[in-house]
Amino acid sequence: MYAGIRRVENNHEKDDLALIVSGGPASTAAVFTQNRVQAAPVKLSRQHLRQSRGVAAAILVNAGNANCATRTGDRVASECCRAVAKRLLLPIAQVLPASTGVIGVELDSSLILKALPALVDGLAENKFDDVSRAIMTTDLAPKVAHAEVKLRRGTVRISGMTKGSGMIHPRMATTLGFVLTDARVPPAVLRGMVTRANDRSYNRLSVDGDTSTNDTLVLMANGASGVGLDPGTHERDSLEEGIATVMESLARQIARDGEGATRLVTIEVTGAATDRDAAQIARTIANSPLVKTAMAGADPNWGRILCAAGYAGVAFDPSKADIDLQETPVCRAGLAAPFSEAALKKKLASQECHIRFALRGKGKGTARFWTCDLTDGYIRINASYRT
Amino acid sequence: MYAGIRRVENNHEKDDLALIVSGGPASTAAVFTQNRVQAAPVKLSRQHLRQSRGVAAAILVNAGNANCATRTGDRVASECCRAVAKRLLLPIAQVLPASTGVIGVELDSSLILKALPALVDGLAENKFDDVSRAIMTTDLAPKVAHAEVKLRRGTVRISGMTKGSGMIHPRMATTLGFVLTDARVPPAVLRGMVTRANDRSYNRLSVDGDTSTNDTLVLMANGASGVGLDPGTHERDSLEEGIATVMESLARQIARDGEGATRLVTIEVTGAATDRDAAQIARTIANSPLVKTAMAGADPNWGRILCAAGYAGVAFDPSKADIDLQETPVCRAGLAAPFSEAALKKKLASQECHIRFALRGKGKGTARFWTCDLTDGYIRINASYRT
Repeated sequence: MYAGIRRVENNHEKDDLALIVSGGPASTAAVFTQNRVQAAPVKLSRQHLRQSRGVAAAILVNAGNANCATRTGDRVASECCRAVAKRLLLPIAQVLPASTGVIGVELDSSLILKALPALVDGLAENKFDDVSRAIMTTDLAPKVAHAEVKLRRGTVRISGMTKGSGMIHPRMATTLGFVLTDARVPPAVLRGMVTRANDRSYNRLSVDGDTSTNDTLVLMANGASGVGLDPGTHERDSLEEGIATVMESLARQIARDGEGATRLVTIEVTGAATDRDAAQIARTIANSPLVKTAMAGADPNWGRILCAAGYAGVAFDPSKADIDLQETPVCRAGLAAPFSEAALKKKLASQECHIRFALRGKGKGTARFWTCDLTDGYIRINASYRT
Repeated sequence: MYAGIRRVENNHEKDDLALIVSGGPASTAAVFTQNRVQAAPVKLSRQHLRQSRGVAAAILVNAGNANCATRTGDRVASECCRAVAKRLLLPIAQVLPASTGVIGVELDSSLILKALPALVDGLAENKFDDVSRAIMTTDLAPKVAHAEVKLRRGTVRISGMTKGSGMIHPRMATTLGFVLTDARVPPAVLRGMVTRANDRSYNRLSVDGDTSTNDTLVLMANGASGVGLDPGTHERDSLEEGIATVMESLARQIARDGEGATRLVTIEVTGAATDRDAAQIARTIANSPLVKTAMAGADPNWGRILCAAGYAGVAFDPSKADIDLQETPVCRAGLAAPFSEAALKKKLASQECHIRFALRGKGKGTARFWTCDLTDGYIRINASYRT
C-alpha cells in the first residue's frame, strides 16, 4: 500500500510499504551489505535473526527512505517491528525490517504505524506481485522468479522477488531480495544455502560499482509443503540448486533493468588459475565504464576489455588471452582477430550481449558475471534522484 | 606534425606526432602504468631507461594509436626509436617512445619514418605548446604547467605537459606526462623525486576508474641552467616541491577536462588512521558514479558520499563522520546537518566543487584527490570513440 513515505510523482501514489508474512514460523537465513555504514533495519534484522536463532515469520519493507544515517533510525525500525509483532501475535525477533530509498532523511514512523492496520487486514496469498512492485525504486519493471523442485516426499516451491537498479555492486547481497520456499529445512542448513547461492548470483552482479548501505537478502523456508529433505540423498543439493536458480534469475533481472540500461551484459571468464581470479577479472570488466559505454554504442572495442582485465590485480599473460563478443572471436592470443566490424556491430545491438574472456593454458578457474551497459539514462536518473 | 596516424576529422588534420629533444643527455626518471597489459612503447621505454642508467635525450610520442596488443608493436617501437637515434646521433637507449590512442590496431611504422625528417628539421625551442596539442586525444584543451625554483646558485625552470581525458585512474602514472627541467640532478635523485611527486599528483586523480595500458610520466633534467643542488641544504626539497607543484597542476587540469566533465571535484579527507586510509576513502568517493552524477546535477546528496566511504574497505565509525560540500556542513556525526537546499544547490553549480570528509578523533591521516563529475558527455564520447 501507499503509506506516504515516497513523494507523490505525477499525481501517482506508488505503493511504498509491504508486509510479507509466513503461515507459521519459518527457518530464515540472510546476507547483508558489507558497507561500514549500515542502515538501521540492516542492524536490527541481523540482531533479530541472532535472537530468534534463525526463525522469522514476517518482513516489513518500505521503499522511498533507506532509514540510514538518521537520528531516529534505530528507534523507528524497532517501533515498527514491535507494532507488526503485536498485530500478528509474533515475538518481535521474528519480524525483520528492510528499507530502500534515500539516505540521510528521517523516516517518520507514524506513517508506517498508521498504515499498519490496513496493511495487515489486506494480507492475502495472491499479493506476491503487489509486494514486488511496492519495493521498486528506480526499477522500470518488477522482478520475480519462481521454481519448483521435486523431492522424493513431494514437490516444494520457491518464489523470489527483488529490486534494483542503482547502487548495485557485488561483495555483498546486493539490494533487497526476498526468497521464500515451502520446503522444510532447518535454519543451519538454510544459512549455508543462502551464502553459496548468493555467491553465484547477487555477488556476481554489478550495475555501477556502488555498494549500498541497505542490501538485504532474506531466504525463508516455512515447511508449509510438509516436505523435508531426505537425508543421505542429494536432495539438499537439488533444493539449493532450485534456490540458486531463482536467485540467478533475479540477479539477471536487476542487471537487465540497471539504471538507464539498454542491454544485459553477461561476462564469462575461463582458464584463470582459480575461480576467485576468474571472478576478479569478470568483476573488473563488468565495472569498467569504458567497456560499459562501448556496449551502449554496440562498439566491438575489445581493447578496453583486455585493458580492464589487465588492471584487475590478477597475474596473467596477455599473450594467452582470447576474447569473443557475441560468440565472434575478436582477440586471439592478445592480438586482433579478423572480424567484420559491421556484422558484429549489428549483433551487439541486441538486448543481450555476451563477453567471453578465455585464458589459454591449464587454469581451471571460471566465473560468470552480469552487468549492463552505461548510457546517458544512468546520468539522467542519478543527477536528479534526490532533489 | 600530422603524420596520418589519426583519422582526419571534419577535414582537419590534427597533429599526431611529436618529438621532444633535450640539448644534451638528461637525467631521466619515469613511472609507468601498473596494468598487466602494457603497450610496446611502455615496455621499450622501461628497457631503454635501464640500459642507459637513467639518461635520455629524446621522447618520440604519437597520438591516435596506443601501439598496444598489436602483432608488430615491439618491432614498430624499436624501429622508430632507431630512426630517431640515427637522425639525432644518439644512442638508441636515449630515445623513449610513448603512444596514446586506440588499442589493438596495428601502428604503421612507415607513417612515422616518413614524417621523421620533417619532424627533426622542425625542432624549435618555441614549440612546447605545439607538442602539448599533438598529444591530445579526447582532450578539449592542452595541459601545460610551468614553475621556477630559486636555488642558491641560480634559478631553474620546470615545464610540464600532459594529456587526458579518459581511461584515467590512479595506482599508476596516469596517461602521458612529460616534465622537463634545466636543473642539474643525478638520475638516482630524480627517481625518488618522480615517485614521490607522482604519488601526490597523478596517483590522486581519477576520471573513470579505468587504468590505461600506456600510462607514462617522464621527468627529464638536462642541467642546461648549469645550476645543481647545493648539498647539505634543503634545495633538493625545494626542487621536488616545484616539480610536484607542476605535476599537481597537470593532474588537476586532467580532472577538469575529464571526458564530458563540467566540474573539477576536489575531495579532502582528514582524521583517518593513516594517510593510506585517507587516500583509500578519497579514491572510493572519487570513483563512485553516484557521487559523480550527483555533482553533475549540483545535488547535495551527501548520503552517497557517506555510503561510498563506507565501502572503501577502511574501518571507521560512521557516527564520527562530518561532510562539507563547498564549505557548507551537510552531515555532522553521521547525521544530516541543517542547510539550505536551494542555496547549496546554487553553490554546487560551479566549475569547482569541494567535498570534505572529516573523521572526528585522533587520526592524523589526510589525503587530497581530484576527479570530475559524470555527465552524459562521457557516455556520448565513449559509446562511439572507436568506430
